[in-house]
Amino acid sequence: MEFLGSHLISAEQLSREDIATVFRTAAMLEPVAQGQKITQVLNGAVLANLFFEPSTRTRISFGAAFSRLGGRVLDTTGFEFSSFAKGESIYDTSRVISGYADVMVVRHPHLGAVKEFSEASCVPVINGGDGPGEHPTQALLDLYTLSKELERSPEQFDGIRIALVGDLKYGRAVRSLAKLMALFNNITFNLVAPDELQMPQSMVDYLEARGHTVYKTANLEDGLDEVDAIYTTRIQEERFPNPEDAERFRGSYTINRDVFSRVCRPDAVLMHPLPRDNRTENCELNNDLNDHPQLAIFRQTDNGIPVRMALFALVLGVVDEIPGSLRDPRWQNRRRYF
Amino acid sequence: MEFLGSHLISAEQLSREDIATVFRTAAMLEPVAQGQKITQVLNGAVLANLFFEPSTRTRISFGAAFSRLGGRVLDTTGFEFSSFAKGESIYDTSRVISGYADVMVVRHPHLGAVKEFSEASCVPVINGGDGPGEHPTQALLDLYTLSKELERSPEQFDGIRIALVGDLKYGRAVRSLAKLMALFNNITFNLVAPDELQMPQSMVDYLEARGHTVYKTANLEDGLDEVDAIYTTRIQEERFPNPEDAERFRGSYTINRDVFSRVCRPDAVLMHPLPRDNRTENCELNNDLNDHPQLAIFRQTDNGIPVRMALFALVLGVVDEIPGSLRDPRWQNRRRYF
Amino acid sequence: MEFLGSHLISAEQLSREDIATVFRTAAMLEPVAQGQKITQVLNGAVLANLFFEPSTRTRISFGAAFSRLGGRVLDTTGFEFSSFAKGESIYDTSRVISGYADVMVVRHPHLGAVKEFSEASCVPVINGGDGPGEHPTQALLDLYTLSKELERSPEQFDGIRIALVGDLKYGRAVRSLAKLMALFNNITFNLVAPDELQMPQSMVDYLEARGHTVYKTANLEDGLDEVDAIYTTRIQEERFPNPEDAERFRGSYTINRDVFSRVCRPDAVLMHPLPRDNRTENCELNNDLNDHPQLAIFRQTDNGIPVRMALFALVLGVVDEIPGSLRDPRWQNRRRYF
Repeated sequence: MEFLGSHLISAEQLSREDIATVFRTAAMLEPVAQGQKITQVLNGAVLANLFFEPSTRTRISFGAAFSRLGGRVLDTTGFEFSSFAKGESIYDTSRVISGYADVMVVRHPHLGAVKEFSEASCVPVINGGDGPGEHPTQALLDLYTLSKELERSPEQFDGIRIALVGDLKYGRAVRSLAKLMALFNNITFNLVAPDELQMPQSMVDYLEARGHTVYKTANLEDGLDEVDAIYTTRIQEERFPNPEDAERFRGSYTINRDVFSRVCRPDAVLMHPLPRDNRTENCELNNDLNDHPQLAIFRQTDNGIPVRMALFALVLGVVDEIPGSLRDPRWQNRRRYF
Repeated sequence: MEFLGSHLISAEQLSREDIATVFRTAAMLEPVAQGQKITQVLNGAVLANLFFEPSTRTRISFGAAFSRLGGRVLDTTGFEFSSFAKGESIYDTSRVISGYADVMVVRHPHLGAVKEFSEASCVPVINGGDGPGEHPTQALLDLYTLSKELERSPEQFDGIRIALVGDLKYGRAVRSLAKLMALFNNITFNLVAPDELQMPQSMVDYLEARGHTVYKTANLEDGLDEVDAIYTTRIQEERFPNPEDAERFRGSYTINRDVFSRVCRPDAVLMHPLPRDNRTENCELNNDLNDHPQLAIFRQTDNGIPVRMALFALVLGVVDEIPGSLRDPRWQNRRRYF
Repeated sequence: MEFLGSHLISAEQLSREDIATVFRTAAMLEPVAQGQKITQVLNGAVLANLFFEPSTRTRISFGAAFSRLGGRVLDTTGFEFSSFAKGESIYDTSRVISGYADVMVVRHPHLGAVKEFSEASCVPVINGGDGPGEHPTQALLDLYTLSKELERSPEQFDGIRIALVGDLKYGRAVRSLAKLMALFNNITFNLVAPDELQMPQSMVDYLEARGHTVYKTANLEDGLDEVDAIYTTRIQEERFPNPEDAERFRGSYTINRDVFSRVCRPDAVLMHPLPRDNRTENCELNNDLNDHPQLAIFRQTDNGIPVRMALFALVLGVVDEIPGSLRDPRWQNRRRYF
């Protein structure tokens, strides 16, 4: 895709080359993301960060990414928008706000609503999640994390083996990640879930039609064997008529230190889109892994900043201007004292 | 008025010369408002953007205007203010917050509350709407839009003919606009509304006492004839004991492509303070006009940015410092790719 | 304490020398706090301003302080955080957000929650109030106000006589202030409260063990005699089974012009952590004192800005970089026109 001036609504817009472009830009911006260097390349620019469905961490992640580039962020949270209550269309809302900002991030509970926003906007719109639909920046930061953890550039992704674990039926993040990975060759997907929550057959067909290997299992330990990476997801109580079923399922898909050391390759990467429900032993990633070097879940959220910075820089066309600004040494070694 | 250090509470504070000053400053700031040029003239400055009544678009418009000048914005929305619940006076709240910021924008549901804020503040306060009272920046951006659309400077406003349509009894925006226009000479006001929602007689007397021509009619097509501009407003259901009456009235005051082409001058300007309820055919401005070149409603909201920038620059006394900063070419041609 | 990279959770972390360091830094930053000079020393830096319990004035005060140093602020208010609802631990929330920002301010309704945040964070955490626990920046700004009003540096605090009035049992601010003052020598504390709301004996013992003079009284006028400063606090209705009792108590601890001129030294300083309930005559500080030169309550809130700026500058290690930036004369004489 041509990033400059474009909307990013779906992971399906992205080619292998696009992914490589985003990752190259993100890697270049890592020192800024970590506060070691500063840039003012988006000085004077305004982000309208519109979260019609609350999601504090995603909102702050986009806001921090834009701020690190020197821009200014205006937020809205929830359906505060009184104009919707008065019967205003998405068309009007989007066109009006797009006249105030240089770019909009939109999260909305309804499938397709963000695309509708983009059609009326006169500035680029980035999808921050549209209900059961897409969350393309999450898929990109997941893949970027995989790239960094496995030390493989997108050119070297072919042949990766990954286990996708948990709620594969409703999980938006896991589906988008699978779609992005399907752009590469010869991926092995171990789909580890109870039958009730297995990946929809249409998605399995999609992956197989592209020549990938798909292996379905309801047995956790079976599915974790020999994979390069494990992507676990939350099994949500609200998916079950009987909440006790949820608890039972969770218990069957819990990875802890014992499971990891017995079953997984020692260099396997542990990922999760977060949040996880870590109040109980049955959490999909047990707290006893919190200090484990292979637990990549926080490096994963950290990676959201450079990936989102890269997307802003690309759609606003300022990538070429960044290197010069990066020379400013004042923020060197400022952060991460711990 | 002397803008430097002053509050802007009411459109009645403004003279013809003041309006010309605001418009001249706004015109100078248009390239910054559109992101084509940048300025940092309010670098280091803080706006307290206090919306005790939610109004996302107005809040973001003020915030974007301040951001484009290089300032930083701190928002509050709704009666989150726990201190009010604890019995704190507006006096204390205003005095405290005014010690944190360089300027405050205040929106409040109660008539006169913003004036009360201004009396305790040690920095300028701009009225962002006080319930049934005033919304002076809306009136200014409406008049600025009229000026741009008709290609007439404030010096050339005399003799304009405008139709004000819809809810003229309760509509705050339309009343403030009429007051500003009354500063000029020989304006013709066509007041188009059902009897129940006609302009209060006191306001009609006010306009006639200043030598303007006022023509009242309940017939839409009659009222649109030969005017330079049409300012439509929303007929709100909550004004009627019987909601069906509202729907019926709305239907009688709907402008669509057919009405426009049959009745209006082809160069007539269509305005609306927004939001409009465009879910039904009876919307006061039909969706079939969305691509019509005479529909100025989105240029109108766009104009809110340079007008509010101009007011910030004037009350903070930084207008003279802007031109130099404007020379920075980095943001040239950055926005509006579509 | 070593400020660089540290959390500030409790006033008990601070020594006399630390207090002097904060005050010296705050004094240096006063021209920036008041908008007369600008600095960009935190350009590129991000504050996560997390208010899980709403407190608009404190949130805006921290946000303004960070903004005045050139940083960018991302806010959250209330338990919007859907991830908590989904069972996420404070550990995960804190670790994730700390990857987006350079520093976090956290306010939380539960005692100890902010400490828990700090333990998972990879950036400094500043306590913005944790329920019945601590509010160390309030204590610091109170003491800084005392220092300025009495024109005494921390080296000259020994021997101060202060009356603490009102709710000494539950009041968090008054307890923290007393603890900070206890670091100095030979302080006289007049504890003026109804028996039901007197300072807990453990705290009295703490003060006496450090060699200070503690005088308890239920009689207001008795307690105000000959003190250098009076720190009044709000008697909250919710502390009493019978709300009428609260009103009666308040009436007995009201300071107004009459009481002040009859009982207090003319140079006594009147302080209050705010908000006060000034709807009735029984307000602990009567409105008839609003213009009294000895009423320091608004200078007190103003002082929150330089004190919080100083803390940010200290924990982020940028103090040494500030003086140079301060030379920029553009904002000179910009504010405080009134």
